[in-house]
Amino acid sequence: MADTTPAGTAADISGLSIEEKASLTSGEGFWRTKAVERAGIPSVMLTDGPHGLRKQREGGDHLGIGDSVPATCFPPAVALGSSWDVELVERVGTALGVESSIEDVAVILGPGINIKRSPLCGRNFEYLSEDPIVSGVLGAALVRGIQSQGVGASLKHFAANNQEDDRMRSSSDVDPRPLREIYLRGFQRVVEDAQPYTVMCSYNRINGVFASENRWLLTDVLRGEWGFEGLVVSDWGAVVDRVAALRAGLDLEMPGNAGLSDAAVVAAVGDGTLDASVLDASAARVAALATRWAATDRVEGPLDVDAHHALAREAAARSIVLLKNDAPATGDAPLLPLAAGRSIAVIGAFAEKPRYQGAGSSMIHPTRLDDALTAIRAAAGDVAYAPGFSLAAEVDAEESTRLRDEAVAAASAADIAVVFAGLPARLESEGYDRDDIDLPADQLAVIDAVVAANPRTVVVLSNGGVVMLPFSQRVPAIVEGWLLGQAGGSATADVLFGAVNPSGKLTETVPLRLEDTPAFLNFPGEEGHVRYGEGLFVGYRWYDARRMPVEYPFGHGLSYTAFRYGDASASVTARGDIQVRVTVTNTGERSGREVVQVYTALPGSRVQRPPRELKGFGSIELEPGASGEVAVTIRREDLAYWDVRADRWVVEGGEYAIEVGASSRDLRATVTAAVDGDEVWLPLTRESSLGEVLAHPVAGPMVQGALAGMSELFDGASSIMPEGVSMERMMASFPIGRVGMMSGGQVTPEMIDGLLAAANAQRQ
Amino acid sequence: MADTTPAGTAADISGLSIEEKASLTSGEGFWRTKAVERAGIPSVMLTDGPHGLRKQREGGDHLGIGDSVPATCFPPAVALGSSWDVELVERVGTALGVESSIEDVAVILGPGINIKRSPLCGRNFEYLSEDPIVSGVLGAALVRGIQSQGVGASLKHFAANNQEDDRMRSSSDVDPRPLREIYLRGFQRVVEDAQPYTVMCSYNRINGVFASENRWLLTDVLRGEWGFEGLVVSDWGAVVDRVAALRAGLDLEMPGNAGLSDAAVVAAVGDGTLDASVLDASAARVAALATRWAATDRVEGPLDVDAHHALAREAAARSIVLLKNDAPATGDAPLLPLAAGRSIAVIGAFAEKPRYQGAGSSMIHPTRLDDALTAIRAAAGDVAYAPGFSLAAEVDAEESTRLRDEAVAAASAADIAVVFAGLPARLESEGYDRDDIDLPADQLAVIDAVVAANPRTVVVLSNGGVVMLPFSQRVPAIVEGWLLGQAGGSATADVLFGAVNPSGKLTETVPLRLEDTPAFLNFPGEEGHVRYGEGLFVGYRWYDARRMPVEYPFGHGLSYTAFRYGDASASVTARGDIQVRVTVTNTGERSGREVVQVYTALPGSRVQRPPRELKGFGSIELEPGASGEVAVTIRREDLAYWDVRADRWVVEGGEYAIEVGASSRDLRATVTAAVDGDEVWLPLTRESSLGEVLAHPVAGPMVQGALAGMSELFDGASSIMPEGVSMERMMASFPIGRVGMMSGGQVTPEMIDGLLAAANAQRQ
Repeated sequence: MADTTPAGTAADISGLSIEEKASLTSGEGFWRTKAVERAGIPSVMLTDGPHGLRKQREGGDHLGIGDSVPATCFPPAVALGSSWDVELVERVGTALGVESSIEDVAVILGPGINIKRSPLCGRNFEYLSEDPIVSGVLGAALVRGIQSQGVGASLKHFAANNQEDDRMRSSSDVDPRPLREIYLRGFQRVVEDAQPYTVMCSYNRINGVFASENRWLLTDVLRGEWGFEGLVVSDWGAVVDRVAALRAGLDLEMPGNAGLSDAAVVAAVGDGTLDASVLDASAARVAALATRWAATDRVEGPLDVDAHHALAREAAARSIVLLKNDAPATGDAPLLPLAAGRSIAVIGAFAEKPRYQGAGSSMIHPTRLDDALTAIRAAAGDVAYAPGFSLAAEVDAEESTRLRDEAVAAASAADIAVVFAGLPARLESEGYDRDDIDLPADQLAVIDAVVAANPRTVVVLSNGGVVMLPFSQRVPAIVEGWLLGQAGGSATADVLFGAVNPSGKLTETVPLRLEDTPAFLNFPGEEGHVRYGEGLFVGYRWYDARRMPVEYPFGHGLSYTAFRYGDASASVTARGDIQVRVTVTNTGERSGREVVQVYTALPGSRVQRPPRELKGFGSIELEPGASGEVAVTIRREDLAYWDVRADRWVVEGGEYAIEVGASSRDLRATVTAAVDGDEVWLPLTRESSLGEVLAHPVAGPMVQGALAGMSELFDGASSIMPEGVSMERMMASFPIGRVGMMSGGQVTPEMIDGLLAAANAQRQ
Repeated sequence: MADTTPAGTAADISGLSIEEKASLTSGEGFWRTKAVERAGIPSVMLTDGPHGLRKQREGGDHLGIGDSVPATCFPPAVALGSSWDVELVERVGTALGVESSIEDVAVILGPGINIKRSPLCGRNFEYLSEDPIVSGVLGAALVRGIQSQGVGASLKHFAANNQEDDRMRSSSDVDPRPLREIYLRGFQRVVEDAQPYTVMCSYNRINGVFASENRWLLTDVLRGEWGFEGLVVSDWGAVVDRVAALRAGLDLEMPGNAGLSDAAVVAAVGDGTLDASVLDASAARVAALATRWAATDRVEGPLDVDAHHALAREAAARSIVLLKNDAPATGDAPLLPLAAGRSIAVIGAFAEKPRYQGAGSSMIHPTRLDDALTAIRAAAGDVAYAPGFSLAAEVDAEESTRLRDEAVAAASAADIAVVFAGLPARLESEGYDRDDIDLPADQLAVIDAVVAANPRTVVVLSNGGVVMLPFSQRVPAIVEGWLLGQAGGSATADVLFGAVNPSGKLTETVPLRLEDTPAFLNFPGEEGHVRYGEGLFVGYRWYDARRMPVEYPFGHGLSYTAFRYGDASASVTARGDIQVRVTVTNTGERSGREVVQVYTALPGSRVQRPPRELKGFGSIELEPGASGEVAVTIRREDLAYWDVRADRWVVEGGEYAIEVGASSRDLRATVTAAVDGDEVWLPLTRESSLGEVLAHPVAGPMVQGALAGMSELFDGASSIMPEGVSMERMMASFPIGRVGMMSGGQVTPEMIDGLLAAANAQRQ
């Protein structure tokens, strides 16, 4: 149906004037590119996503946050990611593409795949995971789905934009390894696998340079290393210096500013400060995007609202994570799914007024909206309901007590209480970060009071960012519903009553305390800089490396059935991937789906590594008693670390430990695989340490010989050192160039250089 | 007696040739400067410290680690710092100066005041604290003492040298605030208060630039900001590029290299790549140091070995930290001091073979050596002794069991067991770092077995770096003896039997686990870089900010008596210092000394701050029942944070919280002080955020007015936002320059610039 060649296809702009080319590279108002009608280049529309279409109505406000045309609100990424379901996620992407096409939208601004560095980030609800493989794999699925309809995706926010606080200025100061291995890895995956039509640069600086002016990022890495063929668009308002941005590889400035910055571009070409070929390339990319959209077959409307709502409901149910499901008392069955015929008290305002999406540019005007209370009543007949707490920003204590007492009374009178708690919308939004990860105190008080009154209490959570769960030991069943989109209410009922057996798993750690989180003292930075001081140790990598307890670990999620894992096997393919296989058996009494996670480690690695890192995942649906094999491919390139010596990815050879788990802390099978390493050749230099030189196959024996003739350097010293203190070890870190200087002039720089040249000449 | 003018005094070198000047700026062999005899400039000697004189014998080995002339081995810094005793530390410094002078040593290489960033640093035993005020105050006392004899100190290792691993290449990558507020603050204090004759640059790089070539560090900061008047000497082998080093402000390269690098200097002056005035300045500083030493009255020998040994004993006893002193059973008295007439089993090889200093360049050849076993026998008559464990690197399991059994038998037969445990010398040394903070397993097994056999067990520790104390809950009394120098054995007996009432306190936190330590995942770095990712949060600052439990907190240390603190008062002096006063009462039955610590915080500070930071300390000696006032001055400059916007120290105005404590977690009194802040004027720019502009006294009202006229920008958007989500808050971080670009061209850059100019012109 659609032309799926990449958006980078050259368009003929040879007949355009400089002014026309410049005009193409910034927007027409908020949501459109500019046309050059005489050349047949149309204006096309880009609108917000990422989990639904937010197409501004005609006459909307200038900032573009105003009312928009109705569209299906699918589960935001925080929920959708928890499905770990590539096929489902791609279908959601396809639906987004369909809705965009019907509305004549050429590009939908998503997916957002930034890493959840801190739970405080106000926009975490728009992001998939704390792990780059989860983000990359699911992000690619969304792009494939969207672009299957000929609509362009916009992979965002590129890059290292992991907070809202001071987002338009703050520099994310990240070292090379975490930048590559954590923050860019998911982007690389999506670009290489799914070739999004557009990539959106983020507002922030990276190591001091604005993303919008970062040639290293937008050109060297994105196009040069990853082969990106599409167009780079600015986040709305991310351009500071338009000419610098073009030079860096930013093709399209959004929104438009009535030609103000186009004039600067024309002037820069005129005075030679901007190479005309740079403008040509960007203008051609915009023209290509526009002309291709013009040539793309559209999906005919009207939108099948029912079908998309059903998909939103399926996705929401798949996204719910069953955190805990204990029996309320010894000998009882687990509390969930809710047994038929028992009276239920529904408590909590979110049951009636669902919190289903986050605030900011991603706010969808939904086609309809399910609430859990209605859905529960549809499933279980009449149930008692008490709001339990107010969602207003200011509530007086008396009102709070009254609501709580009413909730306790309702809970006491029922067999089972289901408390819908969560974060009020005002506490998390695009544009600012949270100050804490607490649920509101009045909600915690309601939960405590309800479970004290009725131990058969289920807590259902609505929240875009993780929250502390201080009641986790007292409440027997906890359902993490995140923000589930417009069909979240019915999907929640599906899970509570067992129409759907939950299979979602956490894509981020639920910590015990904010103070435990990796970026706690490095977030959100100050004075325009945020230091990513935790380095590689983001999310579970941190808690595992520091051996810290957590509330619920990355990858955790329960089912109404149980799965047994057999032994795992691993084999290395011709291209160097590792095929991991494990047989899973449904040992319970319901059909269900299990998400299987594969982690690797390399004991004794030459570089620092987390104790385990996710490298792949798969899932299987099994009837009770049935077994099946889950095969997960670990790509060779995903084993690579970023080698700062060679400034490239390197797969280190060795015996990799492979752990197959139901979560990052529920590891069920281990196996190893021997992997051949990439060759890394680095010449010896004067700064090479004596230890490195002695380990060198050529130079080592030469230096060993020379040292033997200088043994008085060591003997006198070693003789008085305490037993076991080794002069050799102390000297091993001495740069070879300075051994000479320390020899009292016996060894000259020329002698050292000769040795190094001889060693380097004999590269093996 | 001595000329105490700074070493930087200009010497007349106007008659010297370029070659002669160059020759002055590198060493004659390992330990001497070069003479220019015709100009009357002598050669002078520099030798290792820092806790005793390590003067190489004639004919020693070239590396200079060989045998040295006998000297008093005072307690290494790890112990001496625990005294928190400025007067005592200065007396030790004076003694070091005396011994240097007798031996014709012009400069003793110390003190070392690097911050203990990680307990793994192999050289922590040479350093004073994890806190810069402790390091700076005590470091200045040492310098004053040394230089009172006309001998120069060498403040080292400058700077940010906090590990041994790859120390000659690794770049300490530190952000401005921790660099200034943690890593340089102590150096600044010593330079400004005590003007050391020399400062020794460290081996490592700082943010990519070798200390030896770091003009910002050695010239801009050290001389320009701090007013250093002395000479900068390289650590031995720290010079990589001699000309670059001179240009940066490195005056003297050590050791010499037979003129090799002098030739490079001469050539660089010849071809104009090195300004002759740079060489002149450095040569003059070396000449000044040498001629002044020649003119200084020497202390006449021979050394009063007895007097200095007695001082070493006094200092050692003052340095011991009583970590724990419980009653072994309910109703008993605390185990320490050891009661007369009870039989004692001394266990542990360290009792007989003391570990009293660390390995590496600071190893002293002591004038004598006390062991604890002999001292205990002198105090208590015959006591049983069992070595308990072997200190050999390799011990077979059978031997280990035999030694343990023997120890258990001895402990069982005695009333009280005293176990001397600690780190074998091979586990910590200059030149390499530790891999863990564990005591050897066989020693832990002996402690466990002994305390199981006899609950009246005291553990006495000998260790240069902190160790985990997994037995802390089971052993009633723990004495931290660190490395106590040559009189440590007798000093330990003094404390055990109560001849000295211990008063030492920890200058570093004893953590529960290595994984808890701030730098755990950022130490020692790799590939030539170590990221100081924990930022300001070093030592107790980390544990307090993350609300983590520790084994023993910074500042902790017990006494055989008890002290009660009264209320504290605080008053601000004319120059802005805060005078803090507190009355302390000895409520116990022995005379004793209490170290009082003063911490500050600034709630609501505009910058990130630790929950509390030490800003001063004092001590008082009190007879039983007596009270006395401790007055501690907090210098105004110690309240300052490093302001990265203004690139200078700034005292923030506000109500400072002042906590007076017996330790960082035993806070006895609090008071506040209102401090006037420094003015910081920063112009508004296009990158100033809307929030900042609105808060500006001049620009704020102007912009408020303009925004009122653009209200449609917000109204449409705000109307659909969830309750409590504020468009104003979302927009507050928008740079004013980009508000214009986002206005669709309504607001031009020129209009913004006009506004900014108007605002900035009205500086108030």
